[in-house]
Amino acid sequence: MEEYKSVWLKAGIIYALNLAEAGLKPVEVGLGERDFYVDVESQTTLTLEEAKKFAKYKKFNFQVKDGEVEYNGMRIKVSSGEIAQVEPQYFEILNISVHHPTPELQYVRIRGVGFEREEQLKDYLSWLEKVSEYDHRIIGEKLDLFSFPDEAAPGVVLFHPNGQTIRKELMRYMEEINNSMGYKEVYTSHVYRAILWKISGHYDHYRDKMLLFKMEDEELGIKPMNCPAHILIYKSKTRSYRDLPLRFSEFGHVYRWEKKGELYGLLRVRGFTQDDGHIFLRDDQLKDEIKLLIKKTLEVLSTFGFKEDDVRINLSTRPDDSIGTDEQWDKATDALVSALNELGLKYVVKEKEGAFYGPKIDFDIRDSLQRWWQLSTIQVDFNLPERFKLEYVDKDGTKKRPVMVHRAIYGSMDRFMAILLEHFRGKLPTWLSPIQVRVLPITEEVDEYANDVTFKLREKGVRVDVDSGEETLSKRIKRAYDEGIPYIVIVGKKEMEKGEITVRARGNVEIRGIKLNSFLSALLEEIKNRDLSQNNTISKLK
Amino acid sequence: MEEYKSVWLKAGIIYALNLAEAGLKPVEVGLGERDFYVDVESQTTLTLEEAKKFAKYKKFNFQVKDGEVEYNGMRIKVSSGEIAQVEPQYFEILNISVHHPTPELQYVRIRGVGFEREEQLKDYLSWLEKVSEYDHRIIGEKLDLFSFPDEAAPGVVLFHPNGQTIRKELMRYMEEINNSMGYKEVYTSHVYRAILWKISGHYDHYRDKMLLFKMEDEELGIKPMNCPAHILIYKSKTRSYRDLPLRFSEFGHVYRWEKKGELYGLLRVRGFTQDDGHIFLRDDQLKDEIKLLIKKTLEVLSTFGFKEDDVRINLSTRPDDSIGTDEQWDKATDALVSALNELGLKYVVKEKEGAFYGPKIDFDIRDSLQRWWQLSTIQVDFNLPERFKLEYVDKDGTKKRPVMVHRAIYGSMDRFMAILLEHFRGKLPTWLSPIQVRVLPITEEVDEYANDVTFKLREKGVRVDVDSGEETLSKRIKRAYDEGIPYIVIVGKKEMEKGEITVRARGNVEIRGIKLNSFLSALLEEIKNRDLSQNNTISKLK
Repeated sequence: MEEYKSVWLKAGIIYALNLAEAGLKPVEVGLGERDFYVDVESQTTLTLEEAKKFAKYKKFNFQVKDGEVEYNGMRIKVSSGEIAQVEPQYFEILNISVHHPTPELQYVRIRGVGFEREEQLKDYLSWLEKVSEYDHRIIGEKLDLFSFPDEAAPGVVLFHPNGQTIRKELMRYMEEINNSMGYKEVYTSHVYRAILWKISGHYDHYRDKMLLFKMEDEELGIKPMNCPAHILIYKSKTRSYRDLPLRFSEFGHVYRWEKKGELYGLLRVRGFTQDDGHIFLRDDQLKDEIKLLIKKTLEVLSTFGFKEDDVRINLSTRPDDSIGTDEQWDKATDALVSALNELGLKYVVKEKEGAFYGPKIDFDIRDSLQRWWQLSTIQVDFNLPERFKLEYVDKDGTKKRPVMVHRAIYGSMDRFMAILLEHFRGKLPTWLSPIQVRVLPITEEVDEYANDVTFKLREKGVRVDVDSGEETLSKRIKRAYDEGIPYIVIVGKKEMEKGEITVRARGNVEIRGIKLNSFLSALLEEIKNRDLSQNNTISKLK
Repeated sequence: MEEYKSVWLKAGIIYALNLAEAGLKPVEVGLGERDFYVDVESQTTLTLEEAKKFAKYKKFNFQVKDGEVEYNGMRIKVSSGEIAQVEPQYFEILNISVHHPTPELQYVRIRGVGFEREEQLKDYLSWLEKVSEYDHRIIGEKLDLFSFPDEAAPGVVLFHPNGQTIRKELMRYMEEINNSMGYKEVYTSHVYRAILWKISGHYDHYRDKMLLFKMEDEELGIKPMNCPAHILIYKSKTRSYRDLPLRFSEFGHVYRWEKKGELYGLLRVRGFTQDDGHIFLRDDQLKDEIKLLIKKTLEVLSTFGFKEDDVRINLSTRPDDSIGTDEQWDKATDALVSALNELGLKYVVKEKEGAFYGPKIDFDIRDSLQRWWQLSTIQVDFNLPERFKLEYVDKDGTKKRPVMVHRAIYGSMDRFMAILLEHFRGKLPTWLSPIQVRVLPITEEVDEYANDVTFKLREKGVRVDVDSGEETLSKRIKRAYDEGIPYIVIVGKKEMEKGEITVRARGNVEIRGIKLNSFLSALLEEIKNRDLSQNNTISKLK
């Protein structure tokens, strides 16, 4: 798309001048990754429809001087870039957003493109549709999942209702998994005194990425990891050998101030939620615990379709520079190896790639675009128990140091969501879909019946909405499809009279004359089982 | 208790000297609110049993000089205070905790008391038991709900598994309530650019309590309120009149840096979770929305037993210094008044006590200790929609400013939990209890049957544990009672043979010869209904 940038910039300037002529106040024109943008200073927003009115070619005699275009005494900033000789005739406006350059001002940002020839625009739009399918940032916008407003901060995300629905489903599933392993969920503060990070070592070794600041002469730090907080809970009581393994889990929101240039959608953010867990245990319990964790991790991954050749297990062993005794390392590494062997799993040994504080097992997965992602991790840690002087009272009354295991299955939930959105190209399994069913009444006459159907589905906990607009059915079907909704229920007069529905599933499958209850029970089963595909439901309905 | 402080201090010094004689390293003696404390520098913790061994009187000749006691070349800091002439003979050790004065050092803090006469100690212990009943900080410790470790920060709390169970039950209930009102849950970052707080006005008017700091020359602030974040989500799209009322809810964790001296347990903290909600709506929708909110608020309060004379509704009207037009204020105040009147509710008018940005309705509740607490709040806001230039597109295509309503029913969930713990004196309703049933096998022979019973209860989602220790049954019953557990299931040989159980409820109610299934179904009903008392379950079993 690089070749079009000079045309887009010109189109942006023309668009801005159209606005100026209409009495609006464009202040800046620039280039995005795949479009131009025009910022308009305005006390009021522009709707997409309004913005489109100005998207047309007009011959202007303009000159860019010192990075500005002057027009009727109005100065519009133009960010540097070549300006095409050709005339853009075909425009499309793609997106409207709003931001605040100062507390008093508001800029409406209009994004769009312009091309010399109509085919170019057509090609661009179909290209855009294609890349939109596997770019989680575009999917996120289309499905109204999340945003990164300018006033928040780069790398800091707001989850909209639809995005929060996905988060909650992911958390609910992980809660079930954690419960089945005997975890106890905790909830810990984000802010701590610097001394905590000094004890843990983060202050010395992780400081660059930490949000550290002073309040009333006390230095504080926001947690980049949850482990020290879980350790404080461990230390709040005397622990006995009978209490172990003690397993704490938390959906902990941590902050790591990554470099601005490295931020990328949800894949690399500065604040994110981990499905974190820490296990405190005796070393003779290590092997069984690791086995349990590996089994459950593979179970979770397969729920999202990552299994067999699409999962790679890595065992990382002692690096040259490490803490802990030979005996500790041997014991722990043996426990990991035995766990893997007893489960009959293949794995790759990454010699000397363990953390300095202990050996670890990582899980990489391959998505539908054939990309590998490092995801789940299980890390043995001899370091923090030592630094925090952790103890338990053994059977004989002596005090011993427990081993600690860090684990995360999704890893960062935000990043995992991004991977899922791209892996499924926005077509999430039904249990994860923010809207699971959309009901479309063919005509107004059946609106009531549509509402009735909606109510019955909602009553059973299905996330359902109705689209009873005046638009054509095919337009509404297209929109539901674009929004990634797994089931479209169509009701017309015939359906109403028979008390039936027509169901459209993905891949253009349509089944007519279905009883609502048959659909409902098959659907609920699909959701409960967290099925990956709609096959079971469809075959039950056929 | 003031009169005993000098004896306690002396007892603390004697205790410290006992430790020193045994080769331990006490470093400081001081006074707490209701006890002495001794800090011991130690690489290893002390158990309560170990600490108790040193709790005995011995005649020492010691002198406090320059705030120190010297003993065998060891210097022990003694915080200022009068030291009694009388000799403390009767000791009790109450509590052990651990903290880190520097990253390398660990201090074990032992809390205890010492009295001259045995009756004094007895009186103290029964006094302590009584105050423990309605001090949420002590209840929190006894029920293992939360802690405020020194390394976190004053006013910053860690919820242990039991505390998190209560939080989650409270959240789950509020989710149901929010769903029933059509709220959509969102999840927003804690960290934002300073410009957000400048637009919202918090930067100018709330700065003292905010955590503001710089990263790479950009000023950032942690959210003290969730409203600006919800507004950013509102602004992420063009909103139509059909979208309103748009209701966002969030269990938002906010930070407000209160003065250190004002912190008090969970009642006043620096970081807490709100059951926050914001509604964006047209002014003609205000009355109905407020009615719905009032009804639901009263419903929630009554679930916890706060109703009739124990709930006071306040309507606060326009203060002298306020923003917004007369018409706006009249319309909004009328809507609030009409809502209250149409519901037939009594209320107190607080003239001119509204916020500068709009009128509000508050709910005060009276707890079982006859104290009034301000809890739920519903606030109309003309200010933020103005500052953020919020808009919706009306039927006729014109852009209008929505009204905004802030609401919280629990208010701060942390503070609400503290109020509940004191109101119920640690004996929470079953649905809120971290452990709902404890199974006590009378002898080892029935351990397996006890596990079987436990398993069946757990399978149905009951939070249950077993206490099969070697201690006497009465000791174990006492402990379960102290931990506030609503149901104790006792199983002996007789019960096992008949396949029955004995159930003990609160208030010394014991019912023998019950089928597990009858108990289970009555219990599940009680939990599902969020019953306040066990009466229904007991009457079903009798």
